[in-house]
Amino acid sequence: MQNQSQAADKAVPAPKDQHLRELANCIRFLSMDAVEKAKSGHPGMPMGMADIAAVLFSDFMKFDADDPYWFDRDRFVISNGHGSMLLYSLMYLTGYKDMTIEEIQRFRQIDSRTPGHPEYHHAPGIETTTGPLGQGLANSVGFALAERIMNSAFGDDLVDHFTYVFLGDGCTMEGVSHEAISLAGHLKLGRLIAFFDNNSISIDGATSLAESDNQADRFRASNWHVQEIDGHDTDAIRSAIIEARKVTDRPSMISCRTIIGFGFPTKAGTQKAHSDAPGEEEIAGARRILAWSAPPFEIPQPLLDSWRQIGARGRQARMAWADRVKEMPESLRENFERRMKGELPSHWRQAIASAKVELLAIEKDLATRQASGIVLNHLFDAIPEMLGGSADLTPSNNTKAKNQVEITPGHYAGSYVHYGVREHGMAAAMNGIALHGGLIPYGGTFLTFSDYCRPSIRLAAMMEIRTIFVMTHDSIGLGEDGPTHQPIEHLSALRAIPRLAVYRPGDPIETAECWEAILDAPRRAALIALSRQPMPFLRRDAGGENLSARGGYILLDAEGGERRLTIMATGSELHLATQARAVLQGEGIPTAVVSMPCRLIFEEQDDDYKRKVLGETRARVAVEAAVQDSWDRYLGLDGRFVGMHEFGASGKIDDVYKKFDITTDAVVRAARTVLRTA
Amino acid sequence: MQNQSQAADKAVPAPKDQHLRELANCIRFLSMDAVEKAKSGHPGMPMGMADIAAVLFSDFMKFDADDPYWFDRDRFVISNGHGSMLLYSLMYLTGYKDMTIEEIQRFRQIDSRTPGHPEYHHAPGIETTTGPLGQGLANSVGFALAERIMNSAFGDDLVDHFTYVFLGDGCTMEGVSHEAISLAGHLKLGRLIAFFDNNSISIDGATSLAESDNQADRFRASNWHVQEIDGHDTDAIRSAIIEARKVTDRPSMISCRTIIGFGFPTKAGTQKAHSDAPGEEEIAGARRILAWSAPPFEIPQPLLDSWRQIGARGRQARMAWADRVKEMPESLRENFERRMKGELPSHWRQAIASAKVELLAIEKDLATRQASGIVLNHLFDAIPEMLGGSADLTPSNNTKAKNQVEITPGHYAGSYVHYGVREHGMAAAMNGIALHGGLIPYGGTFLTFSDYCRPSIRLAAMMEIRTIFVMTHDSIGLGEDGPTHQPIEHLSALRAIPRLAVYRPGDPIETAECWEAILDAPRRAALIALSRQPMPFLRRDAGGENLSARGGYILLDAEGGERRLTIMATGSELHLATQARAVLQGEGIPTAVVSMPCRLIFEEQDDDYKRKVLGETRARVAVEAAVQDSWDRYLGLDGRFVGMHEFGASGKIDDVYKKFDITTDAVVRAARTVLRTA
Repeated sequence: MQNQSQAADKAVPAPKDQHLRELANCIRFLSMDAVEKAKSGHPGMPMGMADIAAVLFSDFMKFDADDPYWFDRDRFVISNGHGSMLLYSLMYLTGYKDMTIEEIQRFRQIDSRTPGHPEYHHAPGIETTTGPLGQGLANSVGFALAERIMNSAFGDDLVDHFTYVFLGDGCTMEGVSHEAISLAGHLKLGRLIAFFDNNSISIDGATSLAESDNQADRFRASNWHVQEIDGHDTDAIRSAIIEARKVTDRPSMISCRTIIGFGFPTKAGTQKAHSDAPGEEEIAGARRILAWSAPPFEIPQPLLDSWRQIGARGRQARMAWADRVKEMPESLRENFERRMKGELPSHWRQAIASAKVELLAIEKDLATRQASGIVLNHLFDAIPEMLGGSADLTPSNNTKAKNQVEITPGHYAGSYVHYGVREHGMAAAMNGIALHGGLIPYGGTFLTFSDYCRPSIRLAAMMEIRTIFVMTHDSIGLGEDGPTHQPIEHLSALRAIPRLAVYRPGDPIETAECWEAILDAPRRAALIALSRQPMPFLRRDAGGENLSARGGYILLDAEGGERRLTIMATGSELHLATQARAVLQGEGIPTAVVSMPCRLIFEEQDDDYKRKVLGETRARVAVEAAVQDSWDRYLGLDGRFVGMHEFGASGKIDDVYKKFDITTDAVVRAARTVLRTA
Repeated sequence: MQNQSQAADKAVPAPKDQHLRELANCIRFLSMDAVEKAKSGHPGMPMGMADIAAVLFSDFMKFDADDPYWFDRDRFVISNGHGSMLLYSLMYLTGYKDMTIEEIQRFRQIDSRTPGHPEYHHAPGIETTTGPLGQGLANSVGFALAERIMNSAFGDDLVDHFTYVFLGDGCTMEGVSHEAISLAGHLKLGRLIAFFDNNSISIDGATSLAESDNQADRFRASNWHVQEIDGHDTDAIRSAIIEARKVTDRPSMISCRTIIGFGFPTKAGTQKAHSDAPGEEEIAGARRILAWSAPPFEIPQPLLDSWRQIGARGRQARMAWADRVKEMPESLRENFERRMKGELPSHWRQAIASAKVELLAIEKDLATRQASGIVLNHLFDAIPEMLGGSADLTPSNNTKAKNQVEITPGHYAGSYVHYGVREHGMAAAMNGIALHGGLIPYGGTFLTFSDYCRPSIRLAAMMEIRTIFVMTHDSIGLGEDGPTHQPIEHLSALRAIPRLAVYRPGDPIETAECWEAILDAPRRAALIALSRQPMPFLRRDAGGENLSARGGYILLDAEGGERRLTIMATGSELHLATQARAVLQGEGIPTAVVSMPCRLIFEEQDDDYKRKVLGETRARVAVEAAVQDSWDRYLGLDGRFVGMHEFGASGKIDDVYKKFDITTDAVVRAARTVLRTA
């Protein structure tokens, strides 16, 4: 029997360098063993890309396993995140102290540092959460852009590193890959080097089932430097990396022809290697083929020593870098260290105050997108690390502060990015920028197109990073562009994402307050929804407490007795609530208006505060030009909602609001109904 | 003054064919006039692409304005939907009877047939709703694929048409364009011809601000035939179309170098031409430059006559086609006509019945994805127009019926598509397939990746077409793949989309019922969320009423007295509800379990039914391994929710459910709380 199966073994090509092959085999066996123990996982990618990783880490990666947060480290991202065992293996082998062999053995078990896909925060050294395909590639564009911008600001001595990204066939098929590739090529991000795991296998079978693209030509068409190599030839890998690093005016893609599940006796090169526990026979065969005799989860000491040396290789460079930081002029150093830590300049709140002063001097109605533009002018002057941008809607999103300089291809001494019509690529790149550190990315599009970048918004929320999404034209109030452009379900759908702070300010002052709250939360992804149409000022208090920072608050309290009715609203409908209150108060009904710019933050307040704001009465009305889903929680079975129950319509703003009966009168009618029944 | 402005006028190239130029000018002036009257809109695209449209419609488009629904018409899609006035102009000029000059004059006004972006259903001749960029291109891939599949089934005599699509720079930048281009090239859709409005202008300014791609090379890399022409040279346009039509083994892209706002004296060729009313001076200048003297909204009779002849050009072909249909063998004809109308075969419900019989013979727990696979086996045998597919998750989604033959490049006699890792492209192509008619598309991915195709799901819902999204691995129940792959907010976020029927069956029998309800609704987009993990059978009734078709129903009624508690649930948590009920009934608390497989459908039931199902008691508990947002409506202020309040975690399924306390015990505890307080 054994002879037969040996005869059938798929041979592997002879190594160019025996030691590198063995270093790679360490990754392969840790991956196999972990997947086998978990009885689930994805061994194919780590086994296929192990040789590339071995060369990259042995000879090129600038890092120090002792200090995973070293700011000037090379960034390493696996966009094909299902191959997480490659990353965990590298972290264990090179000596990241949080990545013990026990954690490797707990692969995919609850509360381990080694979940099925790499999760940012689970262990130092995981640069970003990947798994949804293409995200890591698009994050990497952000990493590489951030590096160049920080390099422009602080010089080669302090910021000078590469971003390396592994990606698979699935990543290249996802649309976000196009946006990422196109943006990186346009911006000439020469420090970005991508390794394409060109194994021609995906879950359904051979990629030829679904794909005929010439990836090399495709990347070239987007201004990338492209090389095609054998991904198991360590000499070719080394040469290709040397060459790619030399190319400074274009990102590099190295298409590596690999064998998925390299070393498996029968599954190698097939979709059966992609996922699931290989089984004892496959592992036994791999041991035979790769001449590996160590027990599961054990790395022969000489190999482990070699890997640990690789993990320590960057130590001197890091210490030299730390010395250079110490030698910086004090003010520059303080600025650099502050930005590395993600702290804001001490005086930043003055920018909010001065923005409010400017806003309050305006005597006409103002769209919150315009108010936001004014706030950004002040904020950018105070916080130079704010990096703006828009997905080709700069004049509509009001995202460009007046002193922001545009970043152009090859010129990174700026703070505004034209992301193009690439909402998804923008959002994912912003995540990479936020993860890189030193910059605070914000970027604009229309709220309806939050759908186009929702996978990246979700990851920003999950990673708890300060990526800021500026989304204007936030309701049917955009008017004539009609149903496709009018967000209806988006506010509720976004509020449903855990941890994501969705702000919708109700007037210019609230807009400034929301921006303050957003910047005040370094570990919270935020989205601010802004109106296209002008809105009245409902607040005239420039100083004092940031009321919006509690998520919801009493804008106007009930008068003339105990509160009988609560009207809740956000954004452009807040003034409808105040007008309805005026009518009802005129009829002797003590009515409070609650402004609720951020449900998430409101939910986090203590129960006493929430009860005080919402009031004891169950007579509640909410008004928002959107679906009611995120309001049901406060409306209960007795409340009434005034808003959208359908898609919108193209027409003049007043006609559209009237068509859907979102008016002061409708709020008053709803109030009368709940007062009768609640 | 006039001399000065004339001197500054941007000249237009001399026409190759004066008559075609004048036909094109009809489009230009209708577009200008309509945008000017509405004081909003996008004149740049219609003015830039008018020459292309004039040649295409004069010489090639197979259509009959008298019968916009002629099944074998060429399909014409503007993916750059903001240029809707081009489409409306063509419809008016060629004589679509619903597109009157009054409708043109009501452009972008409430309840007109001429909204800001083309809306399917608003007027016959609008093939699809476009506006969100890239969607029309991806729809067109579906149109072109559907045409070939129907051609394979019914032959050249009945189905033999082209799909023409206009697209702009924005479309080419969106990621979905990559998925569409790649899929179309792979499938060798030779009947698809795309015209790229290569005007180098987007909203922020020159496209060079954000883009450096070589689009011609990019399309070539994805197996497209590419031509590059002057988009105002009518001879070149004609030659290019002739050439493109000859290429049968690849889709064609004609890159048309155009001048945005062609004819404007100052705004032509700049982003100022893209959107907004041009103003009287620009229009006066365009009249001068294009030698146009007719008053606004008036087309000189000879030109209108020419256009009307174009609109009638296909009449004979249509009548000949209708004759061929009549001459078909009766059974084939009936089948063809039935499919054109979107009606199901008379015996289709028997497939549901036989699926239930097969399901009920299974004695072990069964994942609803597996149950769905079994149902699909029966359905496909009964309904051959069902066109399956998956975004590279065929073995996981259980979407391939056992008798379905795979469609491969150039071979369309099949009914299963390997869409590749292209959720967005798949969803948009499915929309095109549904819009084309004759086929019922369904396609699978993981529920968490509904985010990747959400813009197309939204459009399916808006258009009220029978696109069916099969989304498996629908909760933390997928286990080890962890937070990125575990949908948490997705059910609520999807239920928030107006008109979208989101089903989540609670056992195998409900799975069959949900499929029946989905297919029973020809004008409703649907999504079915299915479990990865096995679930017990909770229903054993094979025949009788389809209970799931009412959206929600009493699975188990309260016993031993008046109902004191209602537990609501869906999907894999439904059995937790039944177990909790058993505990509570054991304690003498009359408890009903409500299964709620589709909230939308439940909401549509009459009040009496809803009240009966939900019960009078306010003591309500809902359980679902997802966020609570879409349940708050029924929980009120007194109810309690057992489910997710955070992102998920990687681990064994039981560990994950325990970590987040989604257990029978948690439901019982929640019930006790509400019984105390409600």
